[in-house]
Amino acid sequence: MSRTLDYTKELIRRASVTPEDEGCQDWMIEKLEALGFQCETLWFEEVRNLWARRGTQGPVFAFAGHTDVVPTGDVSAWKYDPFTPTEEGDLLYGRGTADMKGSIAAIMVAIEDFVAAHPDHNGSLALLITADEEGPSVNGTVKVVEHLQARNEHIDYCLVGEPSSTNTVGDVIKNGRRGSLGARLTVKGIQGHVAYPHLARNPVHDATPALAELAGTEWDQGNDFFPATSFQISNINAGTGATNVIPGTCEVIFNFRFSTELTDALLRERTEAVLDKHGLDYDLQWTLSGQPFLTDRGALVDAAVTAIRDVTGLDTELSTAGGTSDGRFIAPTGSQVVELGPTNATIHKVDEHTSISELDTLTGIYTRLLEKLMQ
Amino acid sequence: MSRTLDYTKELIRRASVTPEDEGCQDWMIEKLEALGFQCETLWFEEVRNLWARRGTQGPVFAFAGHTDVVPTGDVSAWKYDPFTPTEEGDLLYGRGTADMKGSIAAIMVAIEDFVAAHPDHNGSLALLITADEEGPSVNGTVKVVEHLQARNEHIDYCLVGEPSSTNTVGDVIKNGRRGSLGARLTVKGIQGHVAYPHLARNPVHDATPALAELAGTEWDQGNDFFPATSFQISNINAGTGATNVIPGTCEVIFNFRFSTELTDALLRERTEAVLDKHGLDYDLQWTLSGQPFLTDRGALVDAAVTAIRDVTGLDTELSTAGGTSDGRFIAPTGSQVVELGPTNATIHKVDEHTSISELDTLTGIYTRLLEKLMQ
Ligand SMILES: [Zn+2]
Ligand SMILES: [Zn+2]
Repeated sequence: MSRTLDYTKELIRRASVTPEDEGCQDWMIEKLEALGFQCETLWFEEVRNLWARRGTQGPVFAFAGHTDVVPTGDVSAWKYDPFTPTEEGDLLYGRGTADMKGSIAAIMVAIEDFVAAHPDHNGSLALLITADEEGPSVNGTVKVVEHLQARNEHIDYCLVGEPSSTNTVGDVIKNGRRGSLGARLTVKGIQGHVAYPHLARNPVHDATPALAELAGTEWDQGNDFFPATSFQISNINAGTGATNVIPGTCEVIFNFRFSTELTDALLRERTEAVLDKHGLDYDLQWTLSGQPFLTDRGALVDAAVTAIRDVTGLDTELSTAGGTSDGRFIAPTGSQVVELGPTNATIHKVDEHTSISELDTLTGIYTRLLEKLMQ
Repeated sequence: MSRTLDYTKELIRRASVTPEDEGCQDWMIEKLEALGFQCETLWFEEVRNLWARRGTQGPVFAFAGHTDVVPTGDVSAWKYDPFTPTEEGDLLYGRGTADMKGSIAAIMVAIEDFVAAHPDHNGSLALLITADEEGPSVNGTVKVVEHLQARNEHIDYCLVGEPSSTNTVGDVIKNGRRGSLGARLTVKGIQGHVAYPHLARNPVHDATPALAELAGTEWDQGNDFFPATSFQISNINAGTGATNVIPGTCEVIFNFRFSTELTDALLRERTEAVLDKHGLDYDLQWTLSGQPFLTDRGALVDAAVTAIRDVTGLDTELSTAGGTSDGRFIAPTGSQVVELGPTNATIHKVDEHTSISELDTLTGIYTRLLEKLMQ
């Protein structure tokens, strides 16, 4: 039986709904200490994190991942109990199989095999594990990175185990991520009765031309590594349901996913210029979730590309599309960062599952990557 | 003591929150039958209505009004109990004092005085009273009018007792109303994640340019009797609160108040042309609440203008502004319709009140109007 399958099942049985770890990290520590890792448990508020390292020299290779999973929603909607790992042919069902307990199992097996074959490997092997990736991401990776920086401990190569693959494992790796900038806009008007519009000021009428201009703006054209910056309105709300009242305010939530061609400061400035040009009376609160980052071709990307080709024959695609990941906290320290993990079709959904053979392939890729980079 | 004040208090004590009548009409019937009126109680569903008539000949003068009042909201926010009429100097507090139990009291006194002085008056006097003006207005005036039409009973002059006055009683009368046309628009997109906009279609982005165009359109310029047609968005909603989801639909509620320069058919056509031009995928449901109507100078308007000048010295203003009233159901039968009632500053609000001297002035105006028209 596949050791990766076995390990994945061990982790699935631990119902670690974010921000709980439920013993996943204890299970890892037992195995890692047996391999000679120094394990450091780091509590930030209610979140448990793990920094494990084997070796004292550079370069430092770190696998970054999370033991927490998103909630199951209504369990009765699941085919099988989400915390009872269940095989169906080549498929394994369970919350976290793809995001990302399968990746953790794969790296554990890869490290065991690699250390057994190369006990005196180059540099250091490390794991940076949090139970706060699916939640607010406030007391997880970002705090561990600060902790390491405070003692001048540096990660050279960071492999993030997030499910990067689209159709088959290894077809896509992420070598960067767009920045994410959110905003809450309140356009202020004067409430009134629809029969007396001259006594009111309709904030929806004020807002729509400005929002139409923002939605129609080409912010940039992207570049070789990034798609064009995208603006999306996720929420708009005005009115109480009454059909004869002109609302007093209009609330809008929007988000930029932006490339390295722009900065968040420039986006804020250009947005406010549009709102001002349209004469809006407004409040605006910005939230920067992450700056864009990019890991260009280099030792880590090359090792990942080669490992995938060696194990699967695939020419992988380098991508910066998709949502944010904890890579955004690690990249700014100067680390090379690549995300490589299973296919993501069922993540965060009911009946999350992965292919067992895919997990074994992923283990092979991780092992090969370690050989290329750290042998 | 003023009889109008006394009658208003009698009616205020009956807590006739729409669609309840709470004995108001019984109280009226007792007085009207003593004056020789034939009283007909008409139930439509749960709504009680009254048609009372004195005389069999034309022309028919009818006072139209309602015994129901809007809810009080939180009673503890009121200075005095809303159903305990309370005097404070020249002011009378209570729900319905201005809208429109004061008007009913005034017409009752005016009729008593007029009939006493002119028992063999010209034509017929009538009252069309409903308890469903402040609610859906489905089983009230519109049904009574149908009932009268079915037996070929026609109203020539209709005086609606709605609070038409702005600063002092008689300063404004309404000799028409704008039409009201409402719509519920659902703009359909494709839901998705803000990180993958190419897999989604944002209905807010689709909708905003079209809404901006509708809000910026000059529909007409009005005419001598009507202000320009007005378009107002009362509600817009898209998104579930999640900041990373592109919503699947955007719901918009809007309303036209339109002049006699346009028809509802033309407004529908022009609106749909704008939505189509912007390539929206949408559902649209229209609701016509009332066609515009106008009572030009003639016997009724002249009698109202003269009565106001005789009693108060004011040159009244003819207006078609403001919200809908039950006049919209009566005017299409060919009746002349005028709205004349107390000042409307506190209607539908906490601490609704009216001036006692104003109610006496209104009684004088109503009496003089009857003398001009029916003597
Ligand atoms: Zn994940
Ligand atoms: Zn009213």
